[in-house]
Amino acid sequence: MTPAAPILLTPGPLTTSNRTRQAMMVDWGSWDDRFNQLTASVCTQLLAILNGADSHHCVPLQGSGTFAVEAAIGTLVPRNGKVLVLINGAYGKRLAKICEVLGREFSTFETAEDEPTTAADVDRLLHADSAITHVALIHCETSTGILNPLPQIAEVVKRHDKRLIVDAMSSFGALPIDASEVPFDALIAASGKCLEGVPGMGFVFAEKAALAASQGNCHSLAMDLFDQHSYMAKTGQWRFTPPTHVVAALHEALLQYAEEGGLHARHQRYANNCQALLDGMAELGLRSFLPAAIQAPIIATFHAPDDPRYQFKTFYERVKAKGFILYPGKLTQVETFRVGCIGHVDADGMRAAVKAIAEVLHEMCRSELAREEC
Amino acid sequence: MTPAAPILLTPGPLTTSNRTRQAMMVDWGSWDDRFNQLTASVCTQLLAILNGADSHHCVPLQGSGTFAVEAAIGTLVPRNGKVLVLINGAYGKRLAKICEVLGREFSTFETAEDEPTTAADVDRLLHADSAITHVALIHCETSTGILNPLPQIAEVVKRHDKRLIVDAMSSFGALPIDASEVPFDALIAASGKCLEGVPGMGFVFAEKAALAASQGNCHSLAMDLFDQHSYMAKTGQWRFTPPTHVVAALHEALLQYAEEGGLHARHQRYANNCQALLDGMAELGLRSFLPAAIQAPIIATFHAPDDPRYQFKTFYERVKAKGFILYPGKLTQVETFRVGCIGHVDADGMRAAVKAIAEVLHEMCRSELAREEC
Repeated sequence: MTPAAPILLTPGPLTTSNRTRQAMMVDWGSWDDRFNQLTASVCTQLLAILNGADSHHCVPLQGSGTFAVEAAIGTLVPRNGKVLVLINGAYGKRLAKICEVLGREFSTFETAEDEPTTAADVDRLLHADSAITHVALIHCETSTGILNPLPQIAEVVKRHDKRLIVDAMSSFGALPIDASEVPFDALIAASGKCLEGVPGMGFVFAEKAALAASQGNCHSLAMDLFDQHSYMAKTGQWRFTPPTHVVAALHEALLQYAEEGGLHARHQRYANNCQALLDGMAELGLRSFLPAAIQAPIIATFHAPDDPRYQFKTFYERVKAKGFILYPGKLTQVETFRVGCIGHVDADGMRAAVKAIAEVLHEMCRSELAREEC
Repeated sequence: MTPAAPILLTPGPLTTSNRTRQAMMVDWGSWDDRFNQLTASVCTQLLAILNGADSHHCVPLQGSGTFAVEAAIGTLVPRNGKVLVLINGAYGKRLAKICEVLGREFSTFETAEDEPTTAADVDRLLHADSAITHVALIHCETSTGILNPLPQIAEVVKRHDKRLIVDAMSSFGALPIDASEVPFDALIAASGKCLEGVPGMGFVFAEKAALAASQGNCHSLAMDLFDQHSYMAKTGQWRFTPPTHVVAALHEALLQYAEEGGLHARHQRYANNCQALLDGMAELGLRSFLPAAIQAPIIATFHAPDDPRYQFKTFYERVKAKGFILYPGKLTQVETFRVGCIGHVDADGMRAAVKAIAEVLHEMCRSELAREEC
């Protein structure tokens, strides 16, 4: 793999293949049949990854992943619905903020940033409040990289006859989710994550009956997934101007996804990346924030070195000069930084990143590498 | 100019330069300083085109132009405001639809699709209804290509101490608009139009005091321009994942815009394109829908040939096979088709398109080209 330097070890935008970027060298007419076929092919491929063609529609949407999450809540939660939002990081908090801005009633359940929500929690909460109609969950919380137990929670939500909305932004395409086994009304992801496309569009897998019943719910014209889907089903076209080059790049990225071996292979490569990263960082004495059991192979959070000479900004710039872009921490209580394991990069690339990190810490902390930590 | 075939003679997405597309061959970190500088440079360049740096903020937004229009109305019209929507085509109707979905009170004033709204109309309407707080106008209505008299209407709106929101999607960058002379609270355009970037982001020029007073108005988290601007002003970053490659392409397109000679040169090239098109089509006996006085040099609407053998679909496919993508008509009363004059194409390209159209009509209507019309 020979990506354009520097390598982005961030949770998206991430490093894409040259072939994916080359797909953006054509200008497509948004009204043209050939472009409509490209869109249809993208939706078909996305549904296949989820095993969801029978049960769900794929509704693509312009904008970032957050636009698609807001669209899913706005379209699928009726105006008199109530959402239970499960939180263990910044993206869970964002779900609650969306409910608040949209004027949907909601309650929150928050666990520590290194503690997954459990199915037992959800069971208890649903027993306690019968007004809840929908549960909203982050599958892999990018704030830390923590994985929440989606199948178990989905089963409990289903047993209570409630509806589930899943933000799978950071997991879709890399962690297995089977729509025929895991019940949900909506699952949301985006082009620029584990599918290794470029950012600029999201998509919502919407359960067919739930989407059909959603007309008139949405607070927004542009984000109305009922309208977006109806128009596309009728005409083959996007309702408003699509990000044509982003769609073309995602199409090309999906072809490479299949060629690589699909979900299993993508998951394995990311798992190898994550293991190479965790092993290498452990050798440097840098502690991972999460225990291995709840660490998704998407992004890892590390405690900052406990040394007064360490500053993230300098560290970041020096590692970048060596060809790797890291990501700042997003925790309020402890100083951390994050390293993504996703994108067009393999375990050798991760080991090269660890080597760069080691060199920079050595430089910053002046030949004290013999110590466990700089 | 040697664009990638086929040439898009559509109102956006349109044909971009190879150099603009090449700018998408790099993956940018959305958190990285270099990308923040790219965004800041785009905003500075956009404000300079408008002469608006003193009076307005440029707020970029993910998604298509319609997302930015909805964001402007949702952010800048208070929840108890009332919008007078001026309509002479599909995009004016969309403004009204946005007000309806957002629950903003509104009234409409509709003229025929070949009849501009006049300042006298607006004066009368504002006298008649003092509840109106905002007027919303399409500058160049892409349905037909008609130009509405923005400076005159803006002056009347100002005189009544009301606020103006301008959808300048199809005109910004090609038709002169000077923020120091034309008062407005918001003017909206997008990357994939006359600036010749790729589609995937819009931007709103928001009057500084109006934006500062807009906190809490918006119906949406993702579309809240107050939040979008505040976060960007504070951090230099987009609030949610930006379409990095689209931003990079727009940046490169803006450099070329300046090199070409800025607004005057862009306007002149499009005017030449439009004249070459109208002259050539007139020679073929194809009638323009609009009189020259109200025809903007952006997109032209032509009556379909009055011949039973003419079918748009066949016509479109055959012209496309010769390297030019046309655009369907959007009028309900008369059968038309449209030809865009914008994008990385010059008058020679337009003449080549007319030649292709002539050949196809000749083929379709079997050697009856001697007649005025096929």
